[in-house]
Amino acid sequence: MKAQDWSAEQLRREIRTGSWTEQTSGAASGYVQANMVMLPMQKAFEFLLFCNRNPKPCPVLDVLEPGRFTPNIAKDADVRTDLPKYSIYRHGMLDSEVSDVSGLFADDTVTFLLGCSFSFEKALIAANVPVRNIEEGSNVSMYITSRDCKKAGDFSSKLVVSMRPMTPGQAVRAVQITTRYHITHGAPVHMGDPEQIGISDLANPDFGDPVTIRPGEIPVFWACGVTSTLAALSIKSPLVITHSPGHMFVSDLPDEEMAIF
Amino acid sequence: MKAQDWSAEQLRREIRTGSWTEQTSGAASGYVQANMVMLPMQKAFEFLLFCNRNPKPCPVLDVLEPGRFTPNIAKDADVRTDLPKYSIYRHGMLDSEVSDVSGLFADDTVTFLLGCSFSFEKALIAANVPVRNIEEGSNVSMYITSRDCKKAGDFSSKLVVSMRPMTPGQAVRAVQITTRYHITHGAPVHMGDPEQIGISDLANPDFGDPVTIRPGEIPVFWACGVTSTLAALSIKSPLVITHSPGHMFVSDLPDEEMAIF
Repeated sequence: MKAQDWSAEQLRREIRTGSWTEQTSGAASGYVQANMVMLPMQKAFEFLLFCNRNPKPCPVLDVLEPGRFTPNIAKDADVRTDLPKYSIYRHGMLDSEVSDVSGLFADDTVTFLLGCSFSFEKALIAANVPVRNIEEGSNVSMYITSRDCKKAGDFSSKLVVSMRPMTPGQAVRAVQITTRYHITHGAPVHMGDPEQIGISDLANPDFGDPVTIRPGEIPVFWACGVTSTLAALSIKSPLVITHSPGHMFVSDLPDEEMAIF
Repeated sequence: MKAQDWSAEQLRREIRTGSWTEQTSGAASGYVQANMVMLPMQKAFEFLLFCNRNPKPCPVLDVLEPGRFTPNIAKDADVRTDLPKYSIYRHGMLDSEVSDVSGLFADDTVTFLLGCSFSFEKALIAANVPVRNIEEGSNVSMYITSRDCKKAGDFSSKLVVSMRPMTPGQAVRAVQITTRYHITHGAPVHMGDPEQIGISDLANPDFGDPVTIRPGEIPVFWACGVTSTLAALSIKSPLVITHSPGHMFVSDLPDEEMAIF
């Protein structure tokens, strides 16, 4: 059976035992994948407040109380071992990437799981709206914009967006479709002229890969979960743990449960 | 000018100076009104988590950092003085009702403002869906159901619902309309047989007034913000302050901003 057809539980087992070390995009298709941030309890209220104030880039799927490592949204899962790659940041700087954070996980560690755009990409494809990064087998293009998120305590960040090129007609359909997925970034935050949101060169994304923009297409921008990583790092905490880009936590929630109607 | 036509700012000024002491239903029409809970910072993370886990009854509109009394959603407002009536609870029991809580508000007090169903009632009426409690000039009927909310730390509560009777065809329309207002309780949580959610007698609501149910009508139930009060009281904290029923905080947000599409 191909990894695409695995259950979320099977994929997590392969990851936990070290058999799966790659990115999770496309694996266990149909299950909600999540961005992850681990912070000390002392900063948890302010970070949760940041997410609440910026629900488009940072939609809260699950928060685990201090020291808890079993999420509510995945049976028998363990957030310390079930992601293929973790990024360890010390004082705001990337220190290392590892495949297990059990040794760093403390009694006061609070884990946040936040929605990711993988959930709505399937719905776009089902409606014949192109998802260029999937067509081209690359990572989605992501950009740091000039828009400020709302602050909460010491947490702040510029809004990060992902971009998918399409025709204006397809963009209308994409607005309709992604509006349904309000817990996984929802409707676009911008369409068209990139300079209006402080992006000077679409060919040079801040994260991910550039994709082809065809004649007659416009770029369509969605709020992106990478915003949560930038926000978590903005406080220069001694230790912050996140998923490594593309190496997400895979939940038991079906994508369709993210749809509001 | 009638109170219905006042701006939110004007209504708050009348309340602050003691000229307005009544319920806020129908006043400053078109502006979002909010349930309010004040708790010590020590319990703020868990309570915010409770709201996040139960977004239908407890939709977060605004949270004010410890000691802050100016909300983000209302200009020049003061949550210590701008509600017409507050309920003071000590160790989970109602102690008194007052019109000013400045003397009780501390450096570590965190204020939560949560969505309220007043926002979607106007939209129902505009679509000719009856809102019986408004027709009859009474408070909406509210019931404590047998459904458990998801817990967060020490916070727990049964789900409280509000009920509006209508025909099945009107109920279909009401589902469509209130789906748009996902930050103010959203779509109904139940329709029809009250016993399925543990309500034995519609004529005896736990809060508010009974309303007439006409032949051919079914009861339609929405998650209700009173749930947040029950949850806040479940921890038996030395001091919890909430709005008094019907005496809400009136924000500067237009109702239409609560609509997702």
